[in-house]
Amino acid sequence: MIVAMQEQASEEQIQQVIERLIALGFEVHRSTGAVQTVLGAVGARAEFDVRDIEVLAGVGEVHRISSPYKLVARSFRPEGTIVKFSNGVRIGGNEIVIMAGPCSVESKGQIFSVAESVSRAGAKFLRGGAFKPRSSPYSFQGMGEDALKLMRESGDKFGLLVISEVMEISQIPLMLPYVDIFQVGARNMQNFNLLRELGKERKPVLLKRGIAATIEELLLSAEYLMAGGNYEIILCERGIRTFETYTRNTMDISAIPIVKKLSHLPMLADPSHGTGRRDKVSPMGRAAIAAGADGLLVEVHNAPDQALSDGAQSLYPEQFEKLMSELRLIAPAVGRKLA
Amino acid sequence: MIVAMQEQASEEQIQQVIERLIALGFEVHRSTGAVQTVLGAVGARAEFDVRDIEVLAGVGEVHRISSPYKLVARSFRPEGTIVKFSNGVRIGGNEIVIMAGPCSVESKGQIFSVAESVSRAGAKFLRGGAFKPRSSPYSFQGMGEDALKLMRESGDKFGLLVISEVMEISQIPLMLPYVDIFQVGARNMQNFNLLRELGKERKPVLLKRGIAATIEELLLSAEYLMAGGNYEIILCERGIRTFETYTRNTMDISAIPIVKKLSHLPMLADPSHGTGRRDKVSPMGRAAIAAGADGLLVEVHNAPDQALSDGAQSLYPEQFEKLMSELRLIAPAVGRKLA
Amino acid sequence: MIVAMQEQASEEQIQQVIERLIALGFEVHRSTGAVQTVLGAVGARAEFDVRDIEVLAGVGEVHRISSPYKLVARSFRPEGTIVKFSNGVRIGGNEIVIMAGPCSVESKGQIFSVAESVSRAGAKFLRGGAFKPRSSPYSFQGMGEDALKLMRESGDKFGLLVISEVMEISQIPLMLPYVDIFQVGARNMQNFNLLRELGKERKPVLLKRGIAATIEELLLSAEYLMAGGNYEIILCERGIRTFETYTRNTMDISAIPIVKKLSHLPMLADPSHGTGRRDKVSPMGRAAIAAGADGLLVEVHNAPDQALSDGAQSLYPEQFEKLMSELRLIAPAVGRKLA
Amino acid sequence: MIVAMQEQASEEQIQQVIERLIALGFEVHRSTGAVQTVLGAVGARAEFDVRDIEVLAGVGEVHRISSPYKLVARSFRPEGTIVKFSNGVRIGGNEIVIMAGPCSVESKGQIFSVAESVSRAGAKFLRGGAFKPRSSPYSFQGMGEDALKLMRESGDKFGLLVISEVMEISQIPLMLPYVDIFQVGARNMQNFNLLRELGKERKPVLLKRGIAATIEELLLSAEYLMAGGNYEIILCERGIRTFETYTRNTMDISAIPIVKKLSHLPMLADPSHGTGRRDKVSPMGRAAIAAGADGLLVEVHNAPDQALSDGAQSLYPEQFEKLMSELRLIAPAVGRKLA
Repeated sequence: MIVAMQEQASEEQIQQVIERLIALGFEVHRSTGAVQTVLGAVGARAEFDVRDIEVLAGVGEVHRISSPYKLVARSFRPEGTIVKFSNGVRIGGNEIVIMAGPCSVESKGQIFSVAESVSRAGAKFLRGGAFKPRSSPYSFQGMGEDALKLMRESGDKFGLLVISEVMEISQIPLMLPYVDIFQVGARNMQNFNLLRELGKERKPVLLKRGIAATIEELLLSAEYLMAGGNYEIILCERGIRTFETYTRNTMDISAIPIVKKLSHLPMLADPSHGTGRRDKVSPMGRAAIAAGADGLLVEVHNAPDQALSDGAQSLYPEQFEKLMSELRLIAPAVGRKLA
Repeated sequence: MIVAMQEQASEEQIQQVIERLIALGFEVHRSTGAVQTVLGAVGARAEFDVRDIEVLAGVGEVHRISSPYKLVARSFRPEGTIVKFSNGVRIGGNEIVIMAGPCSVESKGQIFSVAESVSRAGAKFLRGGAFKPRSSPYSFQGMGEDALKLMRESGDKFGLLVISEVMEISQIPLMLPYVDIFQVGARNMQNFNLLRELGKERKPVLLKRGIAATIEELLLSAEYLMAGGNYEIILCERGIRTFETYTRNTMDISAIPIVKKLSHLPMLADPSHGTGRRDKVSPMGRAAIAAGADGLLVEVHNAPDQALSDGAQSLYPEQFEKLMSELRLIAPAVGRKLA
Repeated sequence: MIVAMQEQASEEQIQQVIERLIALGFEVHRSTGAVQTVLGAVGARAEFDVRDIEVLAGVGEVHRISSPYKLVARSFRPEGTIVKFSNGVRIGGNEIVIMAGPCSVESKGQIFSVAESVSRAGAKFLRGGAFKPRSSPYSFQGMGEDALKLMRESGDKFGLLVISEVMEISQIPLMLPYVDIFQVGARNMQNFNLLRELGKERKPVLLKRGIAATIEELLLSAEYLMAGGNYEIILCERGIRTFETYTRNTMDISAIPIVKKLSHLPMLADPSHGTGRRDKVSPMGRAAIAAGADGLLVEVHNAPDQALSDGAQSLYPEQFEKLMSELRLIAPAVGRKLA
Repeated sequence: MIVAMQEQASEEQIQQVIERLIALGFEVHRSTGAVQTVLGAVGARAEFDVRDIEVLAGVGEVHRISSPYKLVARSFRPEGTIVKFSNGVRIGGNEIVIMAGPCSVESKGQIFSVAESVSRAGAKFLRGGAFKPRSSPYSFQGMGEDALKLMRESGDKFGLLVISEVMEISQIPLMLPYVDIFQVGARNMQNFNLLRELGKERKPVLLKRGIAATIEELLLSAEYLMAGGNYEIILCERGIRTFETYTRNTMDISAIPIVKKLSHLPMLADPSHGTGRRDKVSPMGRAAIAAGADGLLVEVHNAPDQALSDGAQSLYPEQFEKLMSELRLIAPAVGRKLA
């Protein structure tokens, strides 16, 4: 067994791990390197539970020599990354940040109406889709650049920053003037060509976890972006595929505290795509914040029944308001606040 | 039940399916459309295997219309079930109920120490294992009846009710005098022999979801218990098996609002087994309550480092106290309170 | 579509659902039973989102009756699709077709060496990657168009057709002169922009199942291609993500007989990506053919130890030869033959 | 990184691994123990693919110090275990062994009819259920001891050995006189109380993989049995739970070559429970044998339409005959034969 101590592990912690290992019957070989101390432990009993070592103070990993990612690792920036915006909004800091809006921008009336209500309820970002490549070629495919313009206008009018999904390299220059964050969807989490180009930009990227992606793979994709020089990365849980079929995906709330420990990057959650059903959005949004998420991405529509896409998972404005008031009660339990 | 015939199904095939359905005791309604024929079959027996129709020639798809469970359905008791105990504790009501204690009872000193601290922090139930059939035959196998006696004594002393896991039919009479709730573990969720016997008792049962069980299967097992006459059933989410390997299981928080809508039964969550890692227990415990759980089952140990089992997922008493104070802040966000 | 109302649904709720269905363009048939009301809705648009009905008050369950795909359904072409090539090779017919070659084209020497040996062993297609966007920006990224040229040359020399993966729309015109089949990788199975462009071409497409894609989703992506006018589609199983971690993915052999029943399209299997381990490639290749696959895609390298990518899952030429001789024994058991 | 060489690794192989590691940029520390040689490799590049080492000759494991199981490991009995029966049948040897029969024994007429036809087709074992604790308390619960008597009688008459499932410790003495193999079902794979008792018997046990069990967990349960002294253990794959819902479970064919490499124990497959649908049983049965399984467990019923349980996955006798003739063609491809 290999026990890699954390880089900041104290000599006292190292001694405690060694003593513990010896007490458990191991013979321990210590290797003190420039970066960290690594312990090789020989003689494990068959029934030994490796978690007993993993949870000791100062222990980084057990069984692996080196993490496959470096830049996104918590040790790279132990104090945590805060992504800052010109109007003072900060993601990853003390304040919880809510991003809300329709699945797709459908009309000027719709987006202005939604922007006004989510702004009034306390959201800081307007979300909305401009490009909608749908599984049916006959479905609504999005308003394209017009959608981006409308989001910018309505965002500016109601004091909201703008986030929208980029799906192809060719959309990057088009979107650049309109958005404050590029959103990368679950299906593109491992589209390395797209990630490489976004890594060259100096605009924040929100990276959603793929439905079949492990947490490690999510972090590796973020590493790819950071390796390109773009350090303002925000992660987002939105559900993984499991055998349970009641909801479209199973929202992996545990990914939130796990990522917050492994990485210094902010971590949001999207309970709309994570559940696919309106009546589950608020419970799962509350759960995500209670588990330590830095914010939420929520679909809100002024008239979900007439929505051209994803109406079934969009909140009515009054449901969103109620959710916001619930989140205000929960925030202090995790040492946070919500505007 | 709806039987949608394939588009190219012949009239002869359709007649054979109709005859088979009638032979099985169904009343059949035929609807011949432009594209395909659809048969509605009324009067299905509960134990009917839909695959017997699916494999017939010309059949496209078969859908059950009627819910496979009746007694556990929300419609059976729309106001919700509240399980009441002699000392006034109520599970499923306005108050969130916390059950805490060690994985295994190890000694009198240990269980009294834990009972005292969890009681002081606000827990209402003492949990603890008496029987521990472990994967290694050399591991600690539990203290048996002595454990139950010690739980009862310490519970009584510190004002706690007692819950412990029953694993075999033969343990039921042994446990009856000591416990206030029989806990059925994830591995026994579909042990129908055990469920049949517990259905005959008039003592509440807490039924944990199996790691490969769908929500519907959990409700069917609860139906089995209720069909035996035992109406005081409490459900519990404790994690499902997914491709993510960072945690032992992926705790399916969304199961909480789903079950609360589908069924009238109380729903708890076990963040200790649901995550398997101490530092994830509190975040996931908070998340479960924020999502609407009626309570938690939490492993607490006075000295987790020396625990004979599951120490890695047991909270220190002071961590448990902190969790309780966080839950007190969250409870009002879901219209609940915590003693 | 069948809408089963909840047992306790009010008459008002039922009327609201009926009105909504009519507003959406459905014709509605109502069946009021002793227990519950069931609505049959005829005339669904292909892109209809069933969740829009599921979230209405009083609705229990919604089931689609009509298959969401038409063109790929077995009933559309009951005799099965055979994709034919100029040199007489036919995929989907009586003869099993094997495609083999390296993960990446690395050099002229390498690809000519591999082409010669796989041709001699009986392969009909040379496979090989030209573009390799890797998770590490420091890894080998593929030889690009030079790779395609070398594949064409070596293929022509040794009597092999050529298949290579297309990853972006911009690569289509570049690849067109060199390849006989466009391969769409698992990560792009739902890249609808790419599928739309490939649907316009008149060159066969081999579509791999995504690691989180259901069989139905695979067929829907094939439908998307066929809706564009490209009817020469070949499907390919290459493993899905499950909780089992011994292999990278779990190759879902059962998808082969399932797809062959549901659809008229040929179905291949890729045991190299499906297992990720050289010593499992031959057993799983044999299994796929025994289960009814129309062919295999196999990674073969002249020197797997020096391979720049996926060496661990590449067969040595002599292992490939042995596999071919085993397949020749198995083919008659499924009424097929192998050249 | 830790590279544990196989116990039988030659000095030449060890040198090759060391050289390979050095060529890849590692610094290597060698530890030559009494049992095996272990290499510690320091300095891995981030993009290094561990599989490149795993596939080298002589390499046992990479990254783990010691296997959690010993007795079931291939190294414990490199030549493989052959379970022998009084009539000369051997499981795990050169000959493929087929076990066939109904899900449940329903009557004398039924079991004698099925026994006669499966024996004539070449089966060596009669399978059948005596105890059927069903999810509905109103369903057929099995004929109990009468079923066992009828199996023994019909087995003896038609030259078949007998296998039946044991579900509780109390059934062991009851079953002992009637069966030649105790079958442990998927739900009991981790019922350690039951395994402990079966470990004391000197009668072969067939252990089925649980639907949520990893291969390692299957082997650990077999280890538990062997630790009790019962060395005649046969493993069986029967499907795992995944997100794919077309079949009840996804049969993990790759588990067959994996187990055959990791362990010396025979490995069978059950395509009836592995698919749950009659028309998929033969394709998956063929696939299992082609992948290297030592035999099959197949449900066959003389009148599947009237079967009291699992009729939808039972073969008609003539389908079973056809499957057997197909298996006779496949067997030589894996160097086996079928009587």
